[in-house]
Amino acid sequence: MRRGSAMAERNRTVRLARRPIGAVTRDDFIIADEARPVPGDNEIVVRVRYLSIDPAMRGWMNEGKSYVPPVALGDVMRALAVGEVVASNHDGFSPGDAVTGLFGVQRYAVSDGRDVERVDTERASLPCWIGGLGMPGMTAYFGLTDVGRPKKGETVVVSAASGAVGSLVGQIAKILGCRAVGIAGGEEKCRYLTEELGFDAAVDYKAGRLQADLVAATPDGIDVYFENVGGVILEAVLDRMNAFGRIPVCGLISVYNATEPQPGPHNLRSILVNRLKMQGFIVFDYRDRYREGVEALLNWHETGLLKFREDVRPGGVDAYPDMLNLLFSGGNFGKLVLEI
Amino acid sequence: MRRGSAMAERNRTVRLARRPIGAVTRDDFIIADEARPVPGDNEIVVRVRYLSIDPAMRGWMNEGKSYVPPVALGDVMRALAVGEVVASNHDGFSPGDAVTGLFGVQRYAVSDGRDVERVDTERASLPCWIGGLGMPGMTAYFGLTDVGRPKKGETVVVSAASGAVGSLVGQIAKILGCRAVGIAGGEEKCRYLTEELGFDAAVDYKAGRLQADLVAATPDGIDVYFENVGGVILEAVLDRMNAFGRIPVCGLISVYNATEPQPGPHNLRSILVNRLKMQGFIVFDYRDRYREGVEALLNWHETGLLKFREDVRPGGVDAYPDMLNLLFSGGNFGKLVLEI
Repeated sequence: MRRGSAMAERNRTVRLARRPIGAVTRDDFIIADEARPVPGDNEIVVRVRYLSIDPAMRGWMNEGKSYVPPVALGDVMRALAVGEVVASNHDGFSPGDAVTGLFGVQRYAVSDGRDVERVDTERASLPCWIGGLGMPGMTAYFGLTDVGRPKKGETVVVSAASGAVGSLVGQIAKILGCRAVGIAGGEEKCRYLTEELGFDAAVDYKAGRLQADLVAATPDGIDVYFENVGGVILEAVLDRMNAFGRIPVCGLISVYNATEPQPGPHNLRSILVNRLKMQGFIVFDYRDRYREGVEALLNWHETGLLKFREDVRPGGVDAYPDMLNLLFSGGNFGKLVLEI
Repeated sequence: MRRGSAMAERNRTVRLARRPIGAVTRDDFIIADEARPVPGDNEIVVRVRYLSIDPAMRGWMNEGKSYVPPVALGDVMRALAVGEVVASNHDGFSPGDAVTGLFGVQRYAVSDGRDVERVDTERASLPCWIGGLGMPGMTAYFGLTDVGRPKKGETVVVSAASGAVGSLVGQIAKILGCRAVGIAGGEEKCRYLTEELGFDAAVDYKAGRLQADLVAATPDGIDVYFENVGGVILEAVLDRMNAFGRIPVCGLISVYNATEPQPGPHNLRSILVNRLKMQGFIVFDYRDRYREGVEALLNWHETGLLKFREDVRPGGVDAYPDMLNLLFSGGNFGKLVLEI
């Protein structure tokens, strides 16, 4: 694992220079070489190997009240990552341990070990631990089972369906005995959903027939809509919801980069008429149950029921701004991971 | 109760002539004298005394999927009412019984007794049984306690707060130990909420300072928002919701008369960030528990904790279109009831 060369390496960091307006640009960050950190008492230093590129990152850059404080100007950009411990003054970790945590967009992270978890690279590869077994996995698992609560035979629709979370949501829905329908952009992604992941149907929102195609794909209506997107897709789905349907709200990617307020759906009345439950959730609220989620997903993965797909990109920390924009443009295919 | 004159009286009915566009007009209905019905086997005839004028009526006139079928063209307009049995071939009812049911906008209704309930006019006046103890009462009680689930010390906000449902929601919130804040139109209604009904604060949405006044009235944010209105009021409230807040959606009166799609709130992201639960409900789903609701409300009413206010208007069935428009313009003050 290049430990020899890593010894001589300096740190390289991506710090937030200003609050971005709309999509991020290179100038919103300061990307620079820095001294490599040394561990203090009860601390470890981690060589970051893979960074998780997540839609939520864009929200973390904004000022204002949210479920976590914004990244402060001048701070290293917050990011989930996996890597290996290269130095340790901490009883719980040894050099060579594979670990996951909020290590940030940088080569080397120092940590007191809080919220750092050792991961088992025998059971799943390192990138899996920030993908199907990381935040996207926990998000899909708890959002669908705890908020969406699908019953056997029901129809589950998920948007951003070929993405890190969506691809798992549809597969878990199938495992639970539901009809799984994915909404994704482009023929290739849609084919992937039905041919590779076993979704019952896929709707290409870029084909210009969203409403008609959604009707055709959901002959019995929609019982659970796992919301990643918002905007016109939410509007189309609201018209297809069955009575007592559930809408776990995981993300609203269509509005994250917006510089003007985006109007909400005109047909919220469906919530009333159909007695829908629309409920936001944050994966961190399930922190105490991660072990349960990881075990469930690993078991399904090991028995071949659940496929993970990472889209690993090279470029190191310098590529971070481009990678985030790639995610928002839907240019990735599978869980977007940046190799450091 | 004018039984002598009633004997000679003909029926008078309001039938739906066409599907209204926007606010109703007189021409959307056929209002005419008809023969007075006679009861068949196991049937009763009811002389309607008071009609409940409800926002939901406007939705019942529209074509399309909803929680109840639309009123068919040519049918008597659907309405909840109270009256007295004037003829009975039914073992369960005798002439003189005070009853409530879906008797429609007409003087005389024939019924097989299904979903007709006898009411106790010793414990509460006849109009109360379509007001505080009728559909508005059940709506407020179950929507707040079962969907909103306020905990002692939390802040409950209700819109259309001086209306039939809203005025009860705020009072029940107080009884349950919450801070109750009402949003209503005009100083007089706001004074009524705080001075007569014991709300902790009231916000006059017509005063042009909705956001600032709402902030001042909810220093600890909002835990439960009982939604009757939608539109800009929902938008303002979403910005004040606390983490894990609940939004029972009872009505969206701001969109019922709309002829163009109305944009939804731009800040639905609050649902995600604050993990809100927004849930529609229909009072009829609680039919099996009405007795529990009536007993709770009657007990609070009899011990002076809960005030009912009816706005009883004269005019008979001919006044129905005007009364419905009065309701939508907010011209009533208390539960709007039409005397027949």
